[in-house]
Amino acid sequence: MPDFNLSARQQALQERTRAFIAEKVIPYERDPRCTAHGPSEDLRQELISLGRASGLLSSHVSTDFGGLALDHASKAILFEEAGYSPLGPVALNIAAPDEGNMHLLQEVATPEQKERWLRPLAAGHIRSCFCMTEPAPGAGSDPGMLQTTARKDGDDYVIDGTKWFITGAEGAGFAIIMAKLEDGNATMFLADMDSPGITIERAMGALDSCFPGGHGVVRFDGLRVSACDILGAPGEGLRYAQVRLSPARLTHCMRWLGAARRCHDIASDYARQRQSFGKTLGEHEGVSFMLADNEMDLHVARLAIWHCAAVLDSGALGKHDSSVTKVIASEASWRVVDRSVQMLGGQGVTHETVVARTFADMRAFRIYDGPSEVHRWSIGRNILRGRKPTQL
Amino acid sequence: MPDFNLSARQQALQERTRAFIAEKVIPYERDPRCTAHGPSEDLRQELISLGRASGLLSSHVSTDFGGLALDHASKAILFEEAGYSPLGPVALNIAAPDEGNMHLLQEVATPEQKERWLRPLAAGHIRSCFCMTEPAPGAGSDPGMLQTTARKDGDDYVIDGTKWFITGAEGAGFAIIMAKLEDGNATMFLADMDSPGITIERAMGALDSCFPGGHGVVRFDGLRVSACDILGAPGEGLRYAQVRLSPARLTHCMRWLGAARRCHDIASDYARQRQSFGKTLGEHEGVSFMLADNEMDLHVARLAIWHCAAVLDSGALGKHDSSVTKVIASEASWRVVDRSVQMLGGQGVTHETVVARTFADMRAFRIYDGPSEVHRWSIGRNILRGRKPTQL
Amino acid sequence: MPDFNLSARQQALQERTRAFIAEKVIPYERDPRCTAHGPSEDLRQELISLGRASGLLSSHVSTDFGGLALDHASKAILFEEAGYSPLGPVALNIAAPDEGNMHLLQEVATPEQKERWLRPLAAGHIRSCFCMTEPAPGAGSDPGMLQTTARKDGDDYVIDGTKWFITGAEGAGFAIIMAKLEDGNATMFLADMDSPGITIERAMGALDSCFPGGHGVVRFDGLRVSACDILGAPGEGLRYAQVRLSPARLTHCMRWLGAARRCHDIASDYARQRQSFGKTLGEHEGVSFMLADNEMDLHVARLAIWHCAAVLDSGALGKHDSSVTKVIASEASWRVVDRSVQMLGGQGVTHETVVARTFADMRAFRIYDGPSEVHRWSIGRNILRGRKPTQL
Amino acid sequence: MPDFNLSARQQALQERTRAFIAEKVIPYERDPRCTAHGPSEDLRQELISLGRASGLLSSHVSTDFGGLALDHASKAILFEEAGYSPLGPVALNIAAPDEGNMHLLQEVATPEQKERWLRPLAAGHIRSCFCMTEPAPGAGSDPGMLQTTARKDGDDYVIDGTKWFITGAEGAGFAIIMAKLEDGNATMFLADMDSPGITIERAMGALDSCFPGGHGVVRFDGLRVSACDILGAPGEGLRYAQVRLSPARLTHCMRWLGAARRCHDIASDYARQRQSFGKTLGEHEGVSFMLADNEMDLHVARLAIWHCAAVLDSGALGKHDSSVTKVIASEASWRVVDRSVQMLGGQGVTHETVVARTFADMRAFRIYDGPSEVHRWSIGRNILRGRKPTQL
Repeated sequence: MPDFNLSARQQALQERTRAFIAEKVIPYERDPRCTAHGPSEDLRQELISLGRASGLLSSHVSTDFGGLALDHASKAILFEEAGYSPLGPVALNIAAPDEGNMHLLQEVATPEQKERWLRPLAAGHIRSCFCMTEPAPGAGSDPGMLQTTARKDGDDYVIDGTKWFITGAEGAGFAIIMAKLEDGNATMFLADMDSPGITIERAMGALDSCFPGGHGVVRFDGLRVSACDILGAPGEGLRYAQVRLSPARLTHCMRWLGAARRCHDIASDYARQRQSFGKTLGEHEGVSFMLADNEMDLHVARLAIWHCAAVLDSGALGKHDSSVTKVIASEASWRVVDRSVQMLGGQGVTHETVVARTFADMRAFRIYDGPSEVHRWSIGRNILRGRKPTQL
Repeated sequence: MPDFNLSARQQALQERTRAFIAEKVIPYERDPRCTAHGPSEDLRQELISLGRASGLLSSHVSTDFGGLALDHASKAILFEEAGYSPLGPVALNIAAPDEGNMHLLQEVATPEQKERWLRPLAAGHIRSCFCMTEPAPGAGSDPGMLQTTARKDGDDYVIDGTKWFITGAEGAGFAIIMAKLEDGNATMFLADMDSPGITIERAMGALDSCFPGGHGVVRFDGLRVSACDILGAPGEGLRYAQVRLSPARLTHCMRWLGAARRCHDIASDYARQRQSFGKTLGEHEGVSFMLADNEMDLHVARLAIWHCAAVLDSGALGKHDSSVTKVIASEASWRVVDRSVQMLGGQGVTHETVVARTFADMRAFRIYDGPSEVHRWSIGRNILRGRKPTQL
Repeated sequence: MPDFNLSARQQALQERTRAFIAEKVIPYERDPRCTAHGPSEDLRQELISLGRASGLLSSHVSTDFGGLALDHASKAILFEEAGYSPLGPVALNIAAPDEGNMHLLQEVATPEQKERWLRPLAAGHIRSCFCMTEPAPGAGSDPGMLQTTARKDGDDYVIDGTKWFITGAEGAGFAIIMAKLEDGNATMFLADMDSPGITIERAMGALDSCFPGGHGVVRFDGLRVSACDILGAPGEGLRYAQVRLSPARLTHCMRWLGAARRCHDIASDYARQRQSFGKTLGEHEGVSFMLADNEMDLHVARLAIWHCAAVLDSGALGKHDSSVTKVIASEASWRVVDRSVQMLGGQGVTHETVVARTFADMRAFRIYDGPSEVHRWSIGRNILRGRKPTQL
Repeated sequence: MPDFNLSARQQALQERTRAFIAEKVIPYERDPRCTAHGPSEDLRQELISLGRASGLLSSHVSTDFGGLALDHASKAILFEEAGYSPLGPVALNIAAPDEGNMHLLQEVATPEQKERWLRPLAAGHIRSCFCMTEPAPGAGSDPGMLQTTARKDGDDYVIDGTKWFITGAEGAGFAIIMAKLEDGNATMFLADMDSPGITIERAMGALDSCFPGGHGVVRFDGLRVSACDILGAPGEGLRYAQVRLSPARLTHCMRWLGAARRCHDIASDYARQRQSFGKTLGEHEGVSFMLADNEMDLHVARLAIWHCAAVLDSGALGKHDSSVTKVIASEASWRVVDRSVQMLGGQGVTHETVVARTFADMRAFRIYDGPSEVHRWSIGRNILRGRKPTQL
């Protein structure tokens, strides 16, 4: 029977995370180590220490690896709170792409791979990157266009190709690399970033500045990888991408919901205080309607996320539901941030508050993990094939 | 902990109602007794008989009065199914305004009043109307502008005034009348419609044609009502209006969600079959994106309704939450219907399907029980006062 | 050099038409001869008499046939004024489909055909219909799917097929019929509606009620047409459809712009007078913002229409520009009417004003003469092919 | 009579400016001297030299001061072309705030003031700033809240106060300062930026990076200004703000229209070339519909700008029309840029193209020179007072 109550544990997580962000993380937002290419490694380590002390670090990982083994429903609670600051996901070691990489490793890596790569990653000692997207004519929204190759050579594989938009590449400890075998089947490989044959060609300038390491162009020139560094099984790359995709998509929704709520709260405070034309800004209907629309958008985004989390927790792959949720949540959160900018007026477009930064950080969310258009196409196709919405 | 599963009873209700609408009600949709002022009384009685036989009649009413005593969460399930046909709510005796009137009577009427008015109403033998809205300069969205007066005269009250947009007035057995006492306090009265002093001045032409009795202008000229026909207590009119309002608003959302889903289903079928420019309509992304947007709108409307139902079931008055839900659901359902019209092309604007009729029927939903603008104003004001969204 | 001044003649036309509509036509709006299938023939004749007396009848037709030989730019002025009342285009004999049919006949008919069909049509003595759209699997938005056939039989052609959404069929004096020859080429034929072999199967129920004769399903069973009743040349049907299409599309935009302006004016008046929550409705920003949006939508629709009229007056076919203008104007006008309904509250959805009627009348405009989606597709394709916007 | 042809001179200006931007300016877009606070003075001077050589410099200024004395209609042509590159307005010395300041000086300054300040500004030798906006509780959208004071002291005035969002303050040669006299009347003063008593407290971080000098917080501490450095007459500050405002607002619209067109062109090229799911991106309707919407938005923005230019050229103050145009053009241009980002996918949010930069640069345009909400309020109020749209 539909129920919207948080469990006692979820309430406790919510309160603890909220307090942690407010008290420990937000004070760092104006730290000069927040650069155009994300928080510096130095700052990241400082934040991770705080996160570790809070007992909330890497909460989606199993307890064996130091996490809280949260299910998706509980992640929805904690991650929204973490997203309330652009530095929150970093401090709690649940930022993209590390968070999704940990999830993937946990699901498909061998015990040896987990020890070697998951353990230090979950502890926040190192970062990672996920090398999938390629420049034209390679794989973008359409994974079928993969160009990077992995050629068998004795017991090893030799990887050649170029990837871009590789978030966190600069400074990452290791990479998960998608490449196609000679039979055309996509396969994932693990490799330390200091391996010979990996070059970061350049950092890409970007609107966002929330991801440690920014976004890079990564070239593989004869990168030699042992067969035992294949993540899971050969030829399973596209399937694993799906394993990673729905949850990763959903955790993006959770974090950005928190970011949007933050902007709404800042705009609400401003609307309560700023005077204009003889009354507070908020007493102007034109402004209070925007606040109302913000609340409604936050509400539907949250409900859709909670629903999708329940779908994933039921064991379903959730491809359709995570598409639906991603479009709803990314577009709703975006509207919230855009309206918050507007309500703040001149301050909305300057760094007087965190809103302008969130505006720049969030724009890409309507694009990565599938642009809205690809999801709409996929949802529409499912409808045409007779798929009914998931009823739990 | 958030949960989106239906209980076994809810699933059974959903299936039974769905089957009832499909098998018994939809065949009546082209019955010529569906007039511009709603289904005729004759047709209504025929439908009510079917509803009674189904065991699903007046399901929101207590079992004492023949209903199923459904909570709001279960109404959300059944009423959505009922709304799948414009005749469904009539057949199950859960159409506005009777449904809300039954709810109100159950909450505040005396045992004698219940026997006299609720019992035959819940049985579907008679209809009722709710006389609140007045022509300018009287009460519209702003109930503070009430002009109709009730003057004490011995043990009786004498009511004078004019009401309009009185849904179902023509043919109703009785009315609930909002009037203000000499001390200015709004009070509700019960009166049989054939009482001397009640005149239906005229039927109003309207876009919709789903409400039995249409919409009328009702005049009270010295209508004499006994003090024991005050509904509940004197001076409590505005409070009772609130008692009625949130649930009535929410049941509107439920029924119209079903209507929107129907239109989406019709458009989906059409998109699967109709050929255009060398492929099916649905294979055009421009159309499949509309289908995807429909599904997302239906999804958020449903989630918001379920959430608000849980709020009401928790015992809260739910004024804020029902405002939020009403705007979300009315605007989302409207977009669904508008897109469905568009996808159907020429057929969308003709009575070849039920979509054009739903389009005309539903437009008023963005206005009655509070136009979107009044709700946005109220939601915004609550935010400015520091109200947080309801967390259960 | 861009200029937005009306010429003296245009100003005079504007003023005369505006006065004619206000004084002569609007009083007929509540005439009971306005039926669900449009104004009766009786009423139409009465209105045409007034139009004739005004000297503004059939103004787009050449002076030889009693018109004013207006260019497109001047039609934009006069037709907008005519559209200010749902009966205005009827009274001035410039309603669809007659207006477009007159244009087409004037462009491509033989002198004999003009005498026989254009002259009485331009005089308002008879009406006409344009038989193009077919039920599935025939021609809808995609004219290539034409199913109606014209088989050569001696000097005659024998036409078989079914058409629907044939506006004005009931009561029309003659039809223009699109059919394909045995070689597959589309051809237009002229035929009196009382010819053997033409049957109006049924009237279609529709949202709109502004077109005399409503919309019908028309069947041709062995309709025999003489070769000299081919409109223009055989095999030129699709080209002629284009000749008719751009101007007809644009005159729809003009008339509906007038209708939208009317709704805006009614809503503006209401917003000035109606009190709500202690001030006039218009003093609520939520309402005044809607008025502002209305004015902006009317403005861009008018500018786009004037621009497209200039393109057509320059001698261009204007297919791309009329697509652009049709989408802009139909969607902008629709938003105006929808907002006007909303501002009027309960009155907006009843026939207390002409707004609800316009709402129902106008919805089909986003569909006929090409749904927005077909135009967007066509505009997008032109952009991809490198087409630049028309610069005059 | 409405006409949309460019004059021969306008066509020539369009072609020359288009070529200048393409050949001379665009190559500088990746110059490292483009900083987060705008192009460096060094780069600006280099661009100005090119602009001077092109003969198109400061084209809105009278020929006496080295310009082309363009009317508003011709500015609409040239400025749109200039805006095609973020560096274009700088190169042609028509960027905000200098362009508006030149206009204002030309309209109201004394001959001596013009020689001293307008001449070097029009020549591009120096820059200027306009000191109006203040931190809370001072003047933002509501100029009535002005806090900065100018106290008469002998023949001089002494100015105290703080201004922020002062575009171009850093590096400006002089400032126009709005302050209120002891009688409360707003007055404009001219002062060299190196005067004692002017301090740039700090540079403000901002989303945009197109304005030389960025945005600063400027403090006046006992700034002494001679009475002969009052701009025009005392007490006329608000009126002069209006003189500056409508044209400045409109030139913003022109430049940003060019910027939006650039983004659309880049997205169109990408849609023609990039492959996705077996066809070019543009062959997906979801993308081609966005291209179509872009073209329509560009079209209505241009038409509205041209119309408003004609209103201003007719001698009208154009306050209402420039409000209407500003909302239409700023929102339409914004939609174009946002869609272009979306179509470009990952590249849209990185500095691989100029689109992401334009996205960040343009957001403030919906806020400065009056946020959309203030304009909607003002437009709505004018409607309620019975104002009709300007007909020329």
